[in-house]
Parts: sequence; structure tokens; C-alpha cells
Amino acid sequence: MQLGFLGLGHMGLAIASNLLAAGHHVRAWNRSQEPLARLQAKGAEIVKEPVDALQGDALFSMLANDDAVRSVLIDSGALAQARKGLIHVNMATISVALAEELAVLHDRLGLAYVAAPVFGRPEAAASAKLHIVVAGAPSPVASIEPVLAALGQKIWPVGSEPKAANIVKIAGNFMIASMIETIGEAAALVQGHGVTAADFLDVMTNSLFAAPAYKTYGDLIARAQFEPAGFKLTLGLKDVRLALAAGEAAHVPLPLGSLLRDNFLDCIAHGESDKDWSALAGVAARRAGLDERDEKRPIA
Amino acid sequence: MQLGFLGLGHMGLAIASNLLAAGHHVRAWNRSQEPLARLQAKGAEIVKEPVDALQGDALFSMLANDDAVRSVLIDSGALAQARKGLIHVNMATISVALAEELAVLHDRLGLAYVAAPVFGRPEAAASAKLHIVVAGAPSPVASIEPVLAALGQKIWPVGSEPKAANIVKIAGNFMIASMIETIGEAAALVQGHGVTAADFLDVMTNSLFAAPAYKTYGDLIARAQFEPAGFKLTLGLKDVRLALAAGEAAHVPLPLGSLLRDNFLDCIAHGESDKDWSALAGVAARRAGLDERDEKRPIA
Amino acid sequence: MQLGFLGLGHMGLAIASNLLAAGHHVRAWNRSQEPLARLQAKGAEIVKEPVDALQGDALFSMLANDDAVRSVLIDSGALAQARKGLIHVNMATISVALAEELAVLHDRLGLAYVAAPVFGRPEAAASAKLHIVVAGAPSPVASIEPVLAALGQKIWPVGSEPKAANIVKIAGNFMIASMIETIGEAAALVQGHGVTAADFLDVMTNSLFAAPAYKTYGDLIARAQFEPAGFKLTLGLKDVRLALAAGEAAHVPLPLGSLLRDNFLDCIAHGESDKDWSALAGVAARRAGLDERDEKRPIA
Amino acid sequence: MQLGFLGLGHMGLAIASNLLAAGHHVRAWNRSQEPLARLQAKGAEIVKEPVDALQGDALFSMLANDDAVRSVLIDSGALAQARKGLIHVNMATISVALAEELAVLHDRLGLAYVAAPVFGRPEAAASAKLHIVVAGAPSPVASIEPVLAALGQKIWPVGSEPKAANIVKIAGNFMIASMIETIGEAAALVQGHGVTAADFLDVMTNSLFAAPAYKTYGDLIARAQFEPAGFKLTLGLKDVRLALAAGEAAHVPLPLGSLLRDNFLDCIAHGESDKDWSALAGVAARRAGLDERDEKRPIA
Repeated sequence: MQLGFLGLGHMGLAIASNLLAAGHHVRAWNRSQEPLARLQAKGAEIVKEPVDALQGDALFSMLANDDAVRSVLIDSGALAQARKGLIHVNMATISVALAEELAVLHDRLGLAYVAAPVFGRPEAAASAKLHIVVAGAPSPVASIEPVLAALGQKIWPVGSEPKAANIVKIAGNFMIASMIETIGEAAALVQGHGVTAADFLDVMTNSLFAAPAYKTYGDLIARAQFEPAGFKLTLGLKDVRLALAAGEAAHVPLPLGSLLRDNFLDCIAHGESDKDWSALAGVAARRAGLDERDEKRPIA
Repeated sequence: MQLGFLGLGHMGLAIASNLLAAGHHVRAWNRSQEPLARLQAKGAEIVKEPVDALQGDALFSMLANDDAVRSVLIDSGALAQARKGLIHVNMATISVALAEELAVLHDRLGLAYVAAPVFGRPEAAASAKLHIVVAGAPSPVASIEPVLAALGQKIWPVGSEPKAANIVKIAGNFMIASMIETIGEAAALVQGHGVTAADFLDVMTNSLFAAPAYKTYGDLIARAQFEPAGFKLTLGLKDVRLALAAGEAAHVPLPLGSLLRDNFLDCIAHGESDKDWSALAGVAARRAGLDERDEKRPIA
Repeated sequence: MQLGFLGLGHMGLAIASNLLAAGHHVRAWNRSQEPLARLQAKGAEIVKEPVDALQGDALFSMLANDDAVRSVLIDSGALAQARKGLIHVNMATISVALAEELAVLHDRLGLAYVAAPVFGRPEAAASAKLHIVVAGAPSPVASIEPVLAALGQKIWPVGSEPKAANIVKIAGNFMIASMIETIGEAAALVQGHGVTAADFLDVMTNSLFAAPAYKTYGDLIARAQFEPAGFKLTLGLKDVRLALAAGEAAHVPLPLGSLLRDNFLDCIAHGESDKDWSALAGVAARRAGLDERDEKRPIA
Repeated sequence: MQLGFLGLGHMGLAIASNLLAAGHHVRAWNRSQEPLARLQAKGAEIVKEPVDALQGDALFSMLANDDAVRSVLIDSGALAQARKGLIHVNMATISVALAEELAVLHDRLGLAYVAAPVFGRPEAAASAKLHIVVAGAPSPVASIEPVLAALGQKIWPVGSEPKAANIVKIAGNFMIASMIETIGEAAALVQGHGVTAADFLDVMTNSLFAAPAYKTYGDLIARAQFEPAGFKLTLGLKDVRLALAAGEAAHVPLPLGSLLRDNFLDCIAHGESDKDWSALAGVAARRAGLDERDEKRPIA
């Protein structure tokens, strides 16, 4: 297929590489040059302007956030000049509000719009192990599914309204952040009674909670290993904000979401903006004064 | 071994049966008669008073809560008349405060005290698939481990202070309750935007959260199947109260624990005391008015 | 003085009337016509466009929210065409972020900018009993204070940065909402034990909490008199959102603010958007099932 | 009247002195001797055992907490040996559960039981400015009201069930703690934007919140003057615990109460157990890192 690709961050670069490996022609654009050169070495065609990536069969985009999507696709006029019939596959984590706006806009412009956010860290993207949540009109989704198959271990269709995929992604990230908070409080509780976080999490992540997310984060938290960041704490706050905003739009109170937000701010106020979002788990220990009770005990 | 057993609820009966199957002699006592008859049919010796179960090599107890432990073992005078050198293996979920008190008391009476609370529902107990958390002095723990091996899939030693096992159990149950709350809020959020809880949880429990606890509870919540109760909501509140009390004793704030407590009370105020504790997941939907927005949509 | 006035809602109309009564010339503009006619009858000059109100000594504005300020003053080009040296007195409750942006913008355009948000309901505005919080550069504040003196019972200068007045206003409204939540929970607690909200609040608002805010709201809550709205619940949510956003900007966690937000959403989900924001006090009773326990007992 | 008095802490001593000044005969007992000597100097008769104070017309008690009431009155056997017809006026802040138990017990023993907890600090007790909340059967309440009149500025009858007065007292203290939390968060918010707590609270406590409680605590908080303690933080936690327990008994969720509990624990974990409970207001600033941002700025 003739594909365009916008946004070559860690995730985007890995995904675009897999599209090339699957035999597609890829016209790529990115704000900074460095990743473009790397993708060019794998066979991509580099284009000057975003709009040049919107002239093929489909456009894949993995832009950083709502503002980047607005700036690169809408305000630039790129979308308005896209080839009629283009299928836009938006893999970014964006707000439900923007998802709704984009669905209307594409429809008006005669373009197909498919939301396809993913679960998985950059390593999973590189090894095509992503979980891809897909939503959009049946026909473009059917066209694009074979392409997505080269990018992940499983595709999860969740309906014909694009925003459905976005709310699933947002709610999923909310669940991860909630898990981190849960582990943080539980670990502080056992530490307060003389059991190490490592011993406790060894039990939990090998019994009831023997799941990928618990093992990955449980290990980081037990070792208080919050740097370098796999997913930055400020991005975690951004995603919780998306959950709260989506909740507000549908008047769904999310008290746990509110707690996450407050605790992310607590982290930022304590200089942890650039740490991994699993540093959230340290708030409970800090508030309990556990970090000061015994120097040799890890924070969480 | 010559064993005693006190407390034949669903869990106790299954465990005592496995002790018999492993070839031990078991002297059993229980407040009500019916389970005693069933255990007698499997070869147990039935005794009249709790104290009669404390004359062998070890006593296993699986009493309902702190009050039952106090009443049956302490106030009755049974413990004071136990055979010197008896190893008491307490498998119940009790408070950290009582665990500390019991450790001191056994020591004073010349008895060994091992805490061995378990993770697993009655079916897991019956099939000897429990996870058993063990704490106590090395020598009695070593003596009793071969016996415990017949009861579970894995034994998790967490130290020489008995209360260590209890805080792990309490923190583990706190994590399950937190998971239920998390699923409830996430499910309400996606439902508010038109995605069913079932579709959403299908994605989550088969990807990031492919863990036993998520699958079991995710399924109950997706089907809003809160009756009959596998673990009663009021017991869930009791366990959260144990976590909050243990937190208070070690001055560890647990804001998520507080949220759980408030939401369990919300359930009780809405007539759900006898439902499974997974009914906690319905609070978010009820507060969002989702239960009234569309009759055909399940509550959570 | 030659004054302009933009925004004749309940508050704006009362304030503009007092400016006329104090002998000032007032050029007024408003989106809808009806209040303009009423002000004209009191001697105001009605102008066609917002920009026409920006040609005198000072402009007073009392627009509904951030969006209205942007639309009427910035996007319309009015501010850019204002008379150089004009003093803009912005009495609206706006975000800290917009306050900072406006300070920079006025400075660049050669205009003076004074923030002067007020505490008080429309009756207090009509009887010139407002509390006016003022912040801005010393010289324009000194020029405008005599004018403000005709509008309120007291002027509270809080510094030279305009946003200081806005954060005081936002924090003050946060305190009122917190008081409503507090009364709601306390009232639900006593009702749960057989004491009426009215009896309880009679004690509290005539002893420790004998303050205007407690008397006004305590009375509304005791009588569950949430309609007609003096200040709409959705505006209350808006103001809490301003507090949370300001907190986020300065990384100040506001767990009570988060609780207020969630409870306002609970109200909206239960059809109370158009009620007075004191309806927030009913959430605790609803969650406790008190509204269904006894038909004759008022909700809060 | 022939009165007995048990419990001569700061409050008890001041109250008992006023009873003497009003011309009553007072037989007093206290665990420690020092205050007894002071009361003797004012004309009291000192007795050896609690039971000796229960032989007159009425007994006033102002014991520290539930445990003290149980120990001094119930476990000692004093109540069982009281003069039949004695009116017991219990002025202490006790749990609703104990209040219910005492009502039944007195009834069974042929004694009258009146709950009369008070609002006011020791100075208010000394100057007979207390607010006294009274509940109990009409006849003993009527007998005792003239005596109470000498102790406070106003008597607030709230019904015939003694626990009604206790729940009003508990809910009132919950309101004070909520006010402290509210001020703490609001002050942290304005400080985060450059306004001092003192400037902010000057506005608030002289306008909307011109109430005794706000003035007293606002001043302490603005000056970060948390020592010496007028009312110890650990007592504040105890009272919040009473509110939460009373809420649990009536299944009333108190999310704000939960927040207070967590924040009191945060204070205790940071070594503030012996400070005044208004130190609770410092949690928001500490979590926001405001205490470390600028050395010269007071904590809250």
C-alpha cells in the first residue's frame, strides 16, 4: 500500500519500520530530522510537508498529543488538501473531545477516519507485540486491518465510532496508573510493619496478580528504579487529565482518577517530573515518612 | 502428625479435609455441628471443647475474625491449657494488632505461634491450590512447612514475626479491592462514552491485565453478577478496615483505602450488604447515573 | 469619569447602575439587549460595539467567563483599538492563566490592567455591599479605588500582579464550596443518627460558625431549598475547575478540590445542573441512602 | 444541689469551678491529685473513690475518652452503686456507640442519663461562655438546665435520645477539622501564586467567613503558630475517628472525613503529634513543596 506516516517518536519510528518491513511504501514526515534519516535508511521516502504524506491510500499518524494533531493536521491545512478517500489511521492517545471533532471533520472532507491507539512500550512496538484497539466505520477498518496485523499481536475492534478506541485507551492507562497507586499504598503499608516491598510484591505478582503490567511495574517499584523514564510522569498526568476530562464530559465522577491527579502533582512538586510514572508509587511512602525512617530501605 | 483444627467454614472445611487426606490425625471442633459431621465422615475425630484440639503436635485454626479468635482461644481459657510446645498455625485473616498480641501471649505460655493466612477462594482450598503466606520463628515454621505443602500450590515465607504474614494478607486483599474499584471506575468511564464494560474488559484482561484476579473479577463485573457472594461485601469492608487500622498504627495514610471504605458504605446504604464484594464496582456507575440512563446496559 | 461597561448580567447590571448613581458617565455594551434598555433608563449611553466602550478613562468588564473575555475583548480586536492609557478594571472570575495573559497583553498595548473580582451575590452588588479584591500596578489602582468605593463595603488590595486578585477570588469560592460539602457530610452524619439538619445547623451557625456564608447556605441546606439557583451548580463546577487548574499550574494538590469536582459531577449526573450549587450538600445524603430512608426527612 | 464531678482536666476544672461559684456543693474525684487541690481551695469536697461522687442529686463527668468512661464508671462498679435516681450529666466527647450503651445501662440501673457535650476551649469554659448541647429524657433535662445555665452562654437541646447530643458534638468537631483542611488547601493555592496566607485569610475572615472559628484558626494558620497546642492533633484524629465510626454505623460515607484522617496521619508521620490540630493545615503546603520553595514563607 501507499502509506504516509506522521510522527516518529519512539513509538512511531518502531511502527513505521514495521510497515516498511511488511512491504509498504511509506512517505514519512517528522518535526525533527534525526529519526527521518533512520527511517530513510530502512527504505522510507522523506517528504517536506505533512500534506505530502496525505496523498496515498492511508495515513498513519502517531503525534504527541492534541496540540500536535491540531497543529500538524488541521491548522497547517494538510487535512483539507488530503487525497479524497484517504484513510487516516490515528494511533496517538488523544482526548475524546478531539476524537469526536476529528470524526466530524474527516467526514466533511470526504476522508475516512480510524482510531487505532495501542497498548505497549517501545520494545513491544519494535517486536510487533502491540495490542491495537481499533474503531471506525466498518469499511475502512476492514481495509486497514491487514496492515495493522503486521504491527501487533492482537487487534481489538471496539465499534464504529472512532472515539470508542480512544476512551478504551484512556481507561486502560487509567487502570495502569491506578495499579501503580495501589502498589504504592500496599507497599507502604507492609513496610510500615517491617516487610520489604520486594518480598511483598514477589508474592503478589506471582500469585493473584501474575499479569504483565504488575510484573513490569512491581519490579520497578520494588527496586525504586524510576530512572530512566520508560513513560514520563508528566505524560502520566496528561493521561489522567484525559480520563478526568472524558469523565467530566459524560458526568462520570472518578474519585480514584482525582487521587491519581493529586498524587502526580505531589511528585512534580517534589522534583520528579522527569522520572518514570511509576514514581507515583513513592507518594504513599513519602507521606508516611518511610523515606526518612530508615535510610537503607528503598522509597517504595 | 497429631493435629487439632478449629473453625470449619468453607475454607476451614476444605483445608481440614486435605490434612486428613495427607494422612494426619485431626481432632476438630466447630461452633456449629453440620460441618463437623462432614469432616467426621472423612476420618476426623470430633471433640467437645476447643481445648481438646490443643493437645497434639499442632493446632490449625481458621476462625472468622478477631472476635472469634478471642472468644474461642483466649477467653475460653483454651490457650492457657494447651500442651506445652504446641505449634499454633493461625490461617485466619486477623488484625495486625491481634497478631502482635497473640505472638506475645503464645510466647508467654510456652507455645509456638505461626501465622499462615492464605490467598484463594474455597475452590482453591479444596484443590490444594492456595497461596500460603507464612511467618514465625524458624524452627516451628520448618516443622510445619511439610504439612502446609499438602494445602497449597506455594508457600511464601515472609519473616520471623508472625504479623508479617498478616500484613501481607491484609495488603493483598486491599489490592484486590483496589482492583475492583479501578475496574468499576474505568468501566463507568467507557460506558459513559458508549463502550460496554464487557468489550472493554475483554481487551484489558487479555492484554496488560491477564492475571487470575482480573479475569475472575472482570468477568463478574462485566456481567454484573454479584450474587451469590463468593466473598461477601461486608467482609470486604472488614478487610479494608483492617488495612486502615494497620495503616493508622504505622501512621501510613491510605487514601485509596479510605475511598474503598466510603464506597463499601455506599453499597451497604444501597442494600448490597449480602452481595459479592465485586459489587463495589457498581458505585461509579450509580454515581454517574449510568444505571438509569439505559435499562439495557448492565450496571458496571 | 468617562467609563465603559461590558457585561450586564445580574452582577454587571447592579454594578453599572451604582456607577451611574455615583455620577459617572457610562457607555455600556451587552450581548443581549434587555439589560441595556434598563441601564439606559438610568442614564447610560448604549454603544453598538464593545470597542466603543474602550475610549474613555476606564473600562469595567463583568463578562461571564474566559471564553467571553477572549471573544469580546481580544478576538474582536476591541482591546487593540482601545484608547492608549485606558484602565481596564476586570471584575469577572477568570482563570489565573488568562489573568497572566491579559496582564502581558495590556502592557504591550499601552493599557493599564486592574483585576477586581468581587465576593457577594446580586443583592450585595445592588446595595453596594460587595467585598472587592483588587490587584494591579499602584498607579491605576490608586486612580480607580475611589470609583470602586461606590460599589462595595470594602476594598481589599492584594498586590501589584493582577492575577493575585483572581487567585484570591478562586480560593475564596473554593472555600465556599468546601463549606457546602462540609455541611452536607455533617448533616448526613447527624441525620443518620436521628437529628435533623435544621436542628444541627441551628446550633452550628449560631455558635462557632456564626458567619454570613454559613448562615446563608446553612439555611438553604436545612430547608433543601436548591431552587431557584442564586449561583448555578454548573458555575460552581466551573469555579472548582479554575481552582484545580490554578493548583495544577503551581503543582499544588487539592484533594478537597478533587472531591468537590467529583461531587458536582454526581449532582449533574442526577439532573441537578440548574439547581443552586448548595445542592452539592445533598450528595452525602444520597450516597447514604438517607433520601430513601424516610420520605418526610429533607434531603440534606 | 448536691453534685459529684469526675474528671478535672482543663475543661473539667473550669466547669467544676463554675458549679462551685454558682453555689452548688461539689464532691470531686480525679485520677491525679493536683487539680483536686486547686478545686478544694475553691470549696469542693474531695472524695477517695469515683463511687463517692455518685451519691448526690447529679453527677457531672468530663472524662477524657471512651476508655476512661468505661474504666472509671463501669468497670469500677461505681455506676452500679450509684444512688437510685441520680442524674448523670456526661459532658465528654464520646462515641455514639458508647452513648447508646450508657443510655441502656443507666436505664437498667434506675439512673437518669443526660448527654451534655460542649463547644468551646478552656478559656470559654472558665468564663462560662460554652455552647452546651443537651439531650436526654425531658424530666432530668429540665432539672439540670438551670445548673447548666451557669456554665455556658447558650444551651442547645437536641432531643430525648442522649446520643443525639454526642453526634452533634462529633459532627461539629468534624466541621472544625474540615475548616482547617479547607483553609490549608486554599492558603497553599494562593501561596503557589504569590499571595501570602496572611493577606488571603485577612480578606476571608473579615468578609464571608467572619466567624469565631475562622478567626481563631485563620490567625493560627496564617502565623503557622501550631505550638503550644490548644487542642492536640492526636485528639483531632480521635474525633475524626469518632465521626467515621458513627458514619459507618449509620452507613454514611464521609469522604471528607476520610481525607481528614489521612492528613492527620501524614502530620503524625512528620512528627507533629503534639502540635495543635490546626497543623493539619500545613499538609497541603508540604505536599506542594511550598515549605521548601522559599525559606521565608511560613508553611501554611
